[in-house]
Amino acid sequence: MRAEKQKEILCWGKNVVMTLMQNFPERCSKVIISKRIKASTQEELISLAKGKGVRYDIVASEVIDSECEENHQGVLAYAQPLCLTSLEDLISKNIEQNSPSLLLLLDHLKDPHNLGAILRTAETAGADAVIIPKDRSVSVNGTVIKVSSGAALRLPVVSVVNLNRSIELLKSKGYWIVGLDHKAENTVWDTPFPERTVLTLGSEGEGLSRLVKKNCDDLRKIPMAGTTGSLNVSVAGAIGIYEWFRNIRSL
Amino acid sequence: MRAEKQKEILCWGKNVVMTLMQNFPERCSKVIISKRIKASTQEELISLAKGKGVRYDIVASEVIDSECEENHQGVLAYAQPLCLTSLEDLISKNIEQNSPSLLLLLDHLKDPHNLGAILRTAETAGADAVIIPKDRSVSVNGTVIKVSSGAALRLPVVSVVNLNRSIELLKSKGYWIVGLDHKAENTVWDTPFPERTVLTLGSEGEGLSRLVKKNCDDLRKIPMAGTTGSLNVSVAGAIGIYEWFRNIRSL
Repeated sequence: MRAEKQKEILCWGKNVVMTLMQNFPERCSKVIISKRIKASTQEELISLAKGKGVRYDIVASEVIDSECEENHQGVLAYAQPLCLTSLEDLISKNIEQNSPSLLLLLDHLKDPHNLGAILRTAETAGADAVIIPKDRSVSVNGTVIKVSSGAALRLPVVSVVNLNRSIELLKSKGYWIVGLDHKAENTVWDTPFPERTVLTLGSEGEGLSRLVKKNCDDLRKIPMAGTTGSLNVSVAGAIGIYEWFRNIRSL
Repeated sequence: MRAEKQKEILCWGKNVVMTLMQNFPERCSKVIISKRIKASTQEELISLAKGKGVRYDIVASEVIDSECEENHQGVLAYAQPLCLTSLEDLISKNIEQNSPSLLLLLDHLKDPHNLGAILRTAETAGADAVIIPKDRSVSVNGTVIKVSSGAALRLPVVSVVNLNRSIELLKSKGYWIVGLDHKAENTVWDTPFPERTVLTLGSEGEGLSRLVKKNCDDLRKIPMAGTTGSLNVSVAGAIGIYEWFRNIRSL
């Protein structure tokens, strides 16, 4: 499958950098380690970098502070994300036909914490990929990778120009497009999710866009008690993802 | 029910402060509004404060910046949280006997984002209260309230001295203590959750403490595909909470 050559991104945090070197040393151009971290952690990182042939530098802690704002635990890396451009390729080469498959389609999410959380849950439940639009959407950055606990490095994220054209393609490949919408009549529990499902989530605050909603085969809501509550999109997504997983396991 | 007199906390964000004044003006001692926010929003806030008899001040934006670090949208409030000390009182006065009831018991969570997210989901699914330990645990603060989207202001949070003594009390009131544990044999799907469930979640990284785990009636895991993934505690909690809700609705 063709991976788009794109700008390197900054990742940080010990687990993330270890995952990266362990599994994708070829995507990691350099690791930067703070002088100030625990000697045993430093040794662990250096030995892994040497073993995998990844370049590394030991620097003053301030250098790392100036590169990223969040809790970096004294280590960062420059990495090529696993961001794919061809949905067609992904489906025909990486996913078995006629077998259960879950894809996520995210309709212009804005918050990197939500994207990171969804990637983590999607990978844990065995989803095959996450589809995001190229424009006006959060993309995979250091915060997303950190929040995803490294899942953003392992699960394919396909960045597409036009969500609605992708939906057409997915339908032709036997996928059923299920949108979560709090105004839907049916709940996520009323009928089992189809084996091949594209779980479609709207953006924070605005939900699904008009055309994406129209193109869904099926809209479902997550039941709520009372009237005051609402769910965060990454939580709504997790409930949908795990409902698909539950349905598939009971087949 | 006796509410503990305790230190006021700072809340911020337009929705949170509006919720607070609308529903609990008596718990709100003062609202601070930035000079710089949109005139219509300012008027909306002032008119609500006047209507509810809440004191307010209009200040330079920098005053608010210096009080809280996160995105405050130009408005903050000093509020008395709904933090209760008597679990006994809560159960005997506020929860119907022999009817479905979900409580959450959080075993020393550390991260305010996780507590806020769990409160939001718990309230949305109709849980009756959340129980947290007094010491070595995150408590309800401004970040928790903001992340909970105001749910932390509406859902009772009971702060207890000893979690294991609380578990004994809850058992005597007909609750079944279900702990989430990734090493459990049974999954959350194998048998329905009991009508009266205390969903027990361990801390980030460490999980359930030894004694709490031993005192659970039942340990369940959330299934995972593959071996690399793990779930964030607020996502694991959401899946457990919604599985209880699904079971209760199909009774």
